[in-house]
Amino acid sequence: MKRIYMDNSATTPVSEAALKAMLPWFREEFGNPSAIYSYGQSGKNILEDCRKRVAKCLGALPTEIFFTSGGTESDNWAVRSACRARGTKGRHIIASAIEHNAILRTLGQMEEDGFEVTYLQPDRLGRITPEQLEAAIRPDTILISIMLASNVVGTVLDIAALAKIAAKRRIWFHTDAVQAVGHIPVQAHALGVDFLSLSAHKFGGPKGVGALYCRMPNNLPPLITGGGQEKEHRSGTENIPGIVGMTTALEEAVENMDEERARLSALRDRIIAGACAIPGVELTGDPENRLPGFVSLTVDGIGHSVHVVNALNEKGICVSSGSACSAASREASHVLLALGYDAKKASGTLRITLGAENRPEEVDYLLSVLPELIMKQRTKAAASPF
Amino acid sequence: MKRIYMDNSATTPVSEAALKAMLPWFREEFGNPSAIYSYGQSGKNILEDCRKRVAKCLGALPTEIFFTSGGTESDNWAVRSACRARGTKGRHIIASAIEHNAILRTLGQMEEDGFEVTYLQPDRLGRITPEQLEAAIRPDTILISIMLASNVVGTVLDIAALAKIAAKRRIWFHTDAVQAVGHIPVQAHALGVDFLSLSAHKFGGPKGVGALYCRMPNNLPPLITGGGQEKEHRSGTENIPGIVGMTTALEEAVENMDEERARLSALRDRIIAGACAIPGVELTGDPENRLPGFVSLTVDGIGHSVHVVNALNEKGICVSSGSACSAASREASHVLLALGYDAKKASGTLRITLGAENRPEEVDYLLSVLPELIMKQRTKAAASPF
Repeated sequence: MKRIYMDNSATTPVSEAALKAMLPWFREEFGNPSAIYSYGQSGKNILEDCRKRVAKCLGALPTEIFFTSGGTESDNWAVRSACRARGTKGRHIIASAIEHNAILRTLGQMEEDGFEVTYLQPDRLGRITPEQLEAAIRPDTILISIMLASNVVGTVLDIAALAKIAAKRRIWFHTDAVQAVGHIPVQAHALGVDFLSLSAHKFGGPKGVGALYCRMPNNLPPLITGGGQEKEHRSGTENIPGIVGMTTALEEAVENMDEERARLSALRDRIIAGACAIPGVELTGDPENRLPGFVSLTVDGIGHSVHVVNALNEKGICVSSGSACSAASREASHVLLALGYDAKKASGTLRITLGAENRPEEVDYLLSVLPELIMKQRTKAAASPF
Repeated sequence: MKRIYMDNSATTPVSEAALKAMLPWFREEFGNPSAIYSYGQSGKNILEDCRKRVAKCLGALPTEIFFTSGGTESDNWAVRSACRARGTKGRHIIASAIEHNAILRTLGQMEEDGFEVTYLQPDRLGRITPEQLEAAIRPDTILISIMLASNVVGTVLDIAALAKIAAKRRIWFHTDAVQAVGHIPVQAHALGVDFLSLSAHKFGGPKGVGALYCRMPNNLPPLITGGGQEKEHRSGTENIPGIVGMTTALEEAVENMDEERARLSALRDRIIAGACAIPGVELTGDPENRLPGFVSLTVDGIGHSVHVVNALNEKGICVSSGSACSAASREASHVLLALGYDAKKASGTLRITLGAENRPEEVDYLLSVLPELIMKQRTKAAASPF
């Protein structure tokens, strides 16, 4: 059975170009970039080359780009180190209630350490208004962290407007752009944020590598200390193959972005139209400002959506019941609850996310099997006491 | 010109078997291990398979192995989280003065946070005695961190004896085993340590992946929080290709260890004998208890050893002046100073470290060019006022 992969928000295959670019760095040019012989220097050179290329893709300067082990580390770094650097100035943080757990759980630990966090409640579509943010700011607010695009409902937030308010008050602003980078234009300077997290495996790069954009890197203490790599900002021998793969994938995504956005948005809208034609199926998130390949639905009467995910899996189609990280647990997503859905509604969600390798025929196939699978599950759910 | 790579303590090429094992996980089986469809499950299955295999290689249980982004993260995790978990119980830490900067710099930040650190001074050979450790312990000591093998002089420390003292007093004991794992037998339970760090790229695995062995994982808070991967101990989408590469390389290293240790020790001893036959060249570190392929030398009269490293580079031979992480700076190694060498002696050091791909002819070639290069540099250094 051919596999149809439609969970690209969870992770993507490494693009052919990215994998090809990575390969020489495993065995042929494997030298340690810190070494002084010519062999290590080739690693150092490609590292700085990658930094320039990533910076260019992000509308940033090479001196503002720091390589990490992924989006989660980048998020942790921004939050933990902002608290370390500015904890004596103030102990108040603002975040949206729909952040990824890489932010929320980290903030939870900061709360244990005596910080206070205000969680902004978005509207039904996942939006946070500048007025809301403004109203939450206190004299002791040191950090604001609001994501650029939701990993659960696909809404793209107006980060430029929010960051402007933070800048006016000189409050550090971090955005988790993990779902956005490589999919919609993300220009760090234009957004006006201080810190921005990204993850390679969300846009055709490999797992285990990411970056943090830092507008003022010298103000942010390192999270991981040691040999002083990344100009003392992130220690540890640099993951050269991973960084090369990420850079190649990012350039590829940025180069094809206009075309891919149009293509994936059209496929997305076909899925939305087809799915929402089924009674009791509704789109979640913002219908206008949303990620190109991102479909998120509530499906009434199916009990937990894991049953439909499994039924689709039996047809060779990979989709998700929610965010990848919470897929294994059956708890209702904190994001849907924050958007005002009740627990029952929030447990019947499907996330179908398209990527570079999806084709129109796959969408046809999905739409040809989805209604029947939902109907079957509704019959089962109605007969079950659970 | 053929390249002769003799800086395997800095990093190693990914072994052919490890790279081959990694490849299917980039594009073919790339699913997110947290996903519930069968495609993600293959990632989850290989992850748990790798955990078992790594645990077996380390004489540990699978439930004690946690994958990280490398040795530096593992070191940071152990130190930072031990301080977080036990900081209310006591504020005193003991470490050796010859730890890697991943430990020392992290301890430096802990000192800023109000912890006090006693740095044990090793003897000339790099050894720490149980008596020394015993004498340094205080009622408020919460953590001891002493490396298993030195990345600068190759000495293998008697960690079992040191850990026994810590265990008696119920003080947490961490060992940085980055230079040891894959090169000498490292059995976590037999060593009796609580935490042990390792890094894949030091034994034929890829850069950007490592592990932390934790005897009592539930006592150690996470350093990186988020989606709850690694049973809540280390969040972030798992770097499956990297973990598969590390596991394959570790098994390979363990399988070939007896043979390789004998082979590399013999090559090492030939280099030591040949180099030390040059007047004014001496071995550093313990001549008996040392890593198999590890040669570390002081060379009198050459000024800074970077000149000899460069001259060897021109002959196609890659060696290091000291540890990789400090190679770019010209400061004398804190390790050699701690061993009692003066700054002048400590600046004239060469580190020649052999690995799986080195052949006897390469050693012949090194020994055929080394004496002349040292003599030439001595002449230059004698004529230079610097």
